[in-house]
Amino acid sequence: MFAEILTIGDELLTGNTVDSNSTFIAEKLTSRGYWVRRKTTVGDDIEEIKTVVQEILSRKPEVLVISGGLGPTHDDVTMLAVAEALGRKFVLCESCLERIKEFYRELHVKGLIDDPELNKARKKMAYLPEGAEPLENTKGAAPGAYIEHDGVKIFVLPGMPREMKAMLENEVLPRLGSQKFIQRKLLAEITDESKLAPILNETLEHFNVRIHSSPKGFGKYIGIILFAESGEEIERAKAFMESKGIRFEEDW
Amino acid sequence: MFAEILTIGDELLTGNTVDSNSTFIAEKLTSRGYWVRRKTTVGDDIEEIKTVVQEILSRKPEVLVISGGLGPTHDDVTMLAVAEALGRKFVLCESCLERIKEFYRELHVKGLIDDPELNKARKKMAYLPEGAEPLENTKGAAPGAYIEHDGVKIFVLPGMPREMKAMLENEVLPRLGSQKFIQRKLLAEITDESKLAPILNETLEHFNVRIHSSPKGFGKYIGIILFAESGEEIERAKAFMESKGIRFEEDW
Repeated sequence: MFAEILTIGDELLTGNTVDSNSTFIAEKLTSRGYWVRRKTTVGDDIEEIKTVVQEILSRKPEVLVISGGLGPTHDDVTMLAVAEALGRKFVLCESCLERIKEFYRELHVKGLIDDPELNKARKKMAYLPEGAEPLENTKGAAPGAYIEHDGVKIFVLPGMPREMKAMLENEVLPRLGSQKFIQRKLLAEITDESKLAPILNETLEHFNVRIHSSPKGFGKYIGIILFAESGEEIERAKAFMESKGIRFEEDW
Repeated sequence: MFAEILTIGDELLTGNTVDSNSTFIAEKLTSRGYWVRRKTTVGDDIEEIKTVVQEILSRKPEVLVISGGLGPTHDDVTMLAVAEALGRKFVLCESCLERIKEFYRELHVKGLIDDPELNKARKKMAYLPEGAEPLENTKGAAPGAYIEHDGVKIFVLPGMPREMKAMLENEVLPRLGSQKFIQRKLLAEITDESKLAPILNETLEHFNVRIHSSPKGFGKYIGIILFAESGEEIERAKAFMESKGIRFEEDW
């Protein structure tokens, strides 16, 4: 089960914004047992988005989560680009339009905008690729979309973090089933890094776990993250590594 | 002049680490006048890295900055993967080996490691793709590499942020020439987003600037970032937009 993440926005490519969205999405997908194999970021450009979506689909992930570029401004072109990438029409979602009207009416009542009416820019957000299921945005105007296409579950989410997070939790994760991965972070004291690899490989052979390691400081500590479907399996793998001479200092 | 960024590390794909490195690199490249067109992240896997490096080279960027996976642990495989992607031999850099020896000798003197000698894992860091120029790591053990390949300037940097930042500043940016882009962030008050696009397009036609926009809050404010080679050009573009009816509130 592998997944890819695509984040979209010029601000991510000029260094004006840190892409914390893809980190959040990656963490949630990992916890559901998906292996996130690649993350890609492109700007707000129809052709770029179209190209990269087609590239990702050609790698046949089980899940593709796209975030960013659903708003009302002229450079929010993600939904149209996805429709074009999939060879689908770009069609008006009537229920989305009602929801957007209501959203701006409420903003107007609160005095946040001068004009509650739907102009062209606002109406644009109600268009989705044909056959897409709208995903409810409880924190903003633009709906997301869920599309099953050639065996790939595609989710298109807003880029504003609070909107993206709510939609991911409420609309995406429930569609990905209940499988859970548990992770445990450990700090291994090791004075010869070359001894570690064979032990990790042996652990992978004997237990149903995934292991990530990364150096912490110089030479003395290696951070180890164990992923498994149960805490028991993690404990067994940990005990095995200890029996092979790895000393775990503490969690980090 | 376009550039791509590739960050490497399993921890970026499990959501355990926010990829702030690519943001830092993107900001520096943008300030040098490069248009960062795409960012990609893959895990510590030779085949994945090899594939993605070849994909990036086929798009012919002027610059490719790679960060992560240069350390001594078993899953640090970036330099070998880059050598394979380029069809170059993986060769020992003698001066790098001396530098690494010295580095571990110093750590030993400081009492940070038990054994100052070079084991296989530490020695691995002294191998670079054939023809690469080593880049000095003033904050850590692993050298970086600079490779000119088929017209692409490839820089391979460590993933530890303090090592990467120092190497980017000291070794990469001086090799990218002195062209500077200036950016100015403005907040535009606008109650109808659909009026903005034609004004931005007209500004782009008349002035030598790049413009990024993103919504701030709902409907009332749009963040505008102007990029140009001089502050004067930015002022002229700003004055033009004001003459067309955009009111700028303040910097953000």
